[in-house]
Amino acid sequence: MKNFTSVDDIQNLNELVSLAKAIKAAPFANAELGRNKTLGLLFFNPSLRTRLSTQKAALNLGMHAIVMNLNTEGWLLEFEDGVVMDGNKAEHIKEAAQVVSQYCDIIAVRSFPTLTDKEKDEEEQVITAFKKYASVPVISLEGSTEHPLQAVADALTVEEYKTIARPKVVLTWAPHPKALPHAVPNSFVKVMKKADVDFVITHPEGYELNPEFTAGVTITHNQDEAFKDANFIYAKNWSNYIEYGQITSKDPSWTVTTEKMALTNDGKFMHCLPVRRNMIVTDDVLDSDASIVIPQANNRTYAAQAILTKILEDGK
Amino acid sequence: MKNFTSVDDIQNLNELVSLAKAIKAAPFANAELGRNKTLGLLFFNPSLRTRLSTQKAALNLGMHAIVMNLNTEGWLLEFEDGVVMDGNKAEHIKEAAQVVSQYCDIIAVRSFPTLTDKEKDEEEQVITAFKKYASVPVISLEGSTEHPLQAVADALTVEEYKTIARPKVVLTWAPHPKALPHAVPNSFVKVMKKADVDFVITHPEGYELNPEFTAGVTITHNQDEAFKDANFIYAKNWSNYIEYGQITSKDPSWTVTTEKMALTNDGKFMHCLPVRRNMIVTDDVLDSDASIVIPQANNRTYAAQAILTKILEDGK
Amino acid sequence: MKNFTSVDDIQNLNELVSLAKAIKAAPFANAELGRNKTLGLLFFNPSLRTRLSTQKAALNLGMHAIVMNLNTEGWLLEFEDGVVMDGNKAEHIKEAAQVVSQYCDIIAVRSFPTLTDKEKDEEEQVITAFKKYASVPVISLEGSTEHPLQAVADALTVEEYKTIARPKVVLTWAPHPKALPHAVPNSFVKVMKKADVDFVITHPEGYELNPEFTAGVTITHNQDEAFKDANFIYAKNWSNYIEYGQITSKDPSWTVTTEKMALTNDGKFMHCLPVRRNMIVTDDVLDSDASIVIPQANNRTYAAQAILTKILEDGK
Repeated sequence: MKNFTSVDDIQNLNELVSLAKAIKAAPFANAELGRNKTLGLLFFNPSLRTRLSTQKAALNLGMHAIVMNLNTEGWLLEFEDGVVMDGNKAEHIKEAAQVVSQYCDIIAVRSFPTLTDKEKDEEEQVITAFKKYASVPVISLEGSTEHPLQAVADALTVEEYKTIARPKVVLTWAPHPKALPHAVPNSFVKVMKKADVDFVITHPEGYELNPEFTAGVTITHNQDEAFKDANFIYAKNWSNYIEYGQITSKDPSWTVTTEKMALTNDGKFMHCLPVRRNMIVTDDVLDSDASIVIPQANNRTYAAQAILTKILEDGK
Repeated sequence: MKNFTSVDDIQNLNELVSLAKAIKAAPFANAELGRNKTLGLLFFNPSLRTRLSTQKAALNLGMHAIVMNLNTEGWLLEFEDGVVMDGNKAEHIKEAAQVVSQYCDIIAVRSFPTLTDKEKDEEEQVITAFKKYASVPVISLEGSTEHPLQAVADALTVEEYKTIARPKVVLTWAPHPKALPHAVPNSFVKVMKKADVDFVITHPEGYELNPEFTAGVTITHNQDEAFKDANFIYAKNWSNYIEYGQITSKDPSWTVTTEKMALTNDGKFMHCLPVRRNMIVTDDVLDSDASIVIPQANNRTYAAQAILTKILEDGK
Repeated sequence: MKNFTSVDDIQNLNELVSLAKAIKAAPFANAELGRNKTLGLLFFNPSLRTRLSTQKAALNLGMHAIVMNLNTEGWLLEFEDGVVMDGNKAEHIKEAAQVVSQYCDIIAVRSFPTLTDKEKDEEEQVITAFKKYASVPVISLEGSTEHPLQAVADALTVEEYKTIARPKVVLTWAPHPKALPHAVPNSFVKVMKKADVDFVITHPEGYELNPEFTAGVTITHNQDEAFKDANFIYAKNWSNYIEYGQITSKDPSWTVTTEKMALTNDGKFMHCLPVRRNMIVTDDVLDSDASIVIPQANNRTYAAQAILTKILEDGK
């Protein structure tokens, strides 16, 4: 594996999930692999789970982790070509990416979408620029359209908690007070299409995700129907993709409740976190045994460690 | 030791101080104890000494230290139960604490009081929530009512510098331009009550600390009388506890001066730092041989290392 | 070497550059030297290269690196003596420097100039205070008048890329939208005076650097003449030194272009970065083979590692 910035970079999901499970069983077994290697974690946006779990994954492999908040601790970066840099952006991504490549053996970047400029967001301007100019592997810590490390953790979690060979997995939209990116649902859709599951998406009319990604997946606007006999409910808000970045519904009837969970086949509740209680899901669901959001977050470490392992081994 | 968030968590002060002294004599002797263990340091507020000394202590034990400024680098946290999270707080402490527990073997948290909501401050809302929801030990890096790591360093310092078996130790209020918390004086009171010292508190009328903590301690409003024959003067400002969080005096006659120190029995001057020069204490006292604030700050490392040692050993 | 805060601290440039080259050839060869040693990196200002390369250098030597943004993560510091600290500055540099010295074996500090108070800037108030009060070696990560780690990397780069024994090296002013410090050009002037090069400075009239530093160096206001037969062009903006901190020219005819580079003797283009494209230098020059700004930035690691090595070895 060279870069890991999309679920599309996973060649064999089963093998990757198996690797993550093996790492989880013995997280320190490969502590020589990262010796004298440095992971640079560059944040343009806030992060809790990703920040901590990816550092932990690097440390487990014997790597050093250097964390930097680009916007507050460094210089504002220019991403456009050919401009006269006479504004407030002090450095071009061309130099920044090449330079950081010399101090770090792997670069990991978090950069959220604008949610106003659809074209720029879909280009994955920041991640794409790092991949173009960096001379070392690049990992996405969540870009504008994908959150692939989350997707690996999600696939591992479904694998661990499934009770039948081919579980029914439902991705459901749920209401939220702020406009949120599409990165998590996009990557979850992509990874579930690679997994051996019966996958259904449910959301209000008009809240279609990018049809390129959802092609071939069953989509229904009837949440109750979707929940029927489900083994996993994955709740997530996203802003409108067609009326790009807008909030066109906060319909509370989409909140995941105990009544809704009762429609499932003893279904497990998943969410990438952070989760808005009593908006996305009620307290009683989140605090019930059906919720596996905490072990799901734990799997972030082993997902990241599996990706780092593959990159380091391919670089040997 | 499971958690360390209050001086009350110290079962045997003598033994703890002896451990800290032994660690100070050989700080790297136990570098295998923390192998593959990670300390997460979570800051809701600024920190210099605590931030650096606790990291240093972890590194001395072979631990990894991961530092995070929660408010600026992560998500705003909700601490109330049952709320509809439709505001600016993206994550509930229930999830945050459980999640971080999976990435870190010990969680250390700094959270200052509001100084406006006495009830919430006295509940130690943040530290209490971490203790409640975290599945790993929690250390206070200063909460709203206690700063117990400081207290251990203070006890070690008194032990090192005392010239008689039972020294007279005076905690004196001193003026300050801003409203300050009660955490440091509270923990100092608690730890001195556990130590073999003649302990006196002096402050202007109305500046009583929480009487629960000071019960049994000699309190006088006559600073000169208090200083008489003292072996240690511990200066500290705190805001009014009764008129909660207010500044009801900036009386400069309470500033510790050379003249005042002359009343003592060759007394040593202590302060937790940062200290406002010529408000709390005059330059001449702070720059004199009587001042032991620098070695006192040095002891922060060994206090933290002693606590980490006890927690790691009890967790084996 | 005790401190490293100025090019003047280099006793033997050839030997230092040779050490840096040897370290570059085998960066992990001396990984025991820094064992149990901690480098504290204290930032009062933004930093990308310096932040990452100096951490990397420390890690390569087996040191721990603790990074702290003083202004946002700690307390505002007071640098004046004798003041009544009743304002917003919570801690005096006297205490801060002494305290940090106890947690770190080497202190590295970045502090930019005010560009308004020439006297204070020339005193190097912050770096000087750390040197005065710290009990451990102090390294400048760029002060108000010098950037000596950059200068060592620059000297190493000239040494690596020179094709004749005594190359012609030109420092040229170039336009920039913001008022910039003199630290980089000052240190470059100082280090080139120590190197075996034919050194020329060119800038618009009125943009003279501190004459104390440029004494004995050929200075011309004719950029074309300066570029003639040059082997290295080092471009840099600085604000006016006489009309202190002012921008008195943004003359675009000083931008380094392909036409200008054609005047040189196959000259290499250098810049400390971050660089404003199409202000300081055109895209075509920066993206050409003549540009060595990326390997120059890479040398920051080995420059820092050479300095850390000398300090650690002298401290043994």
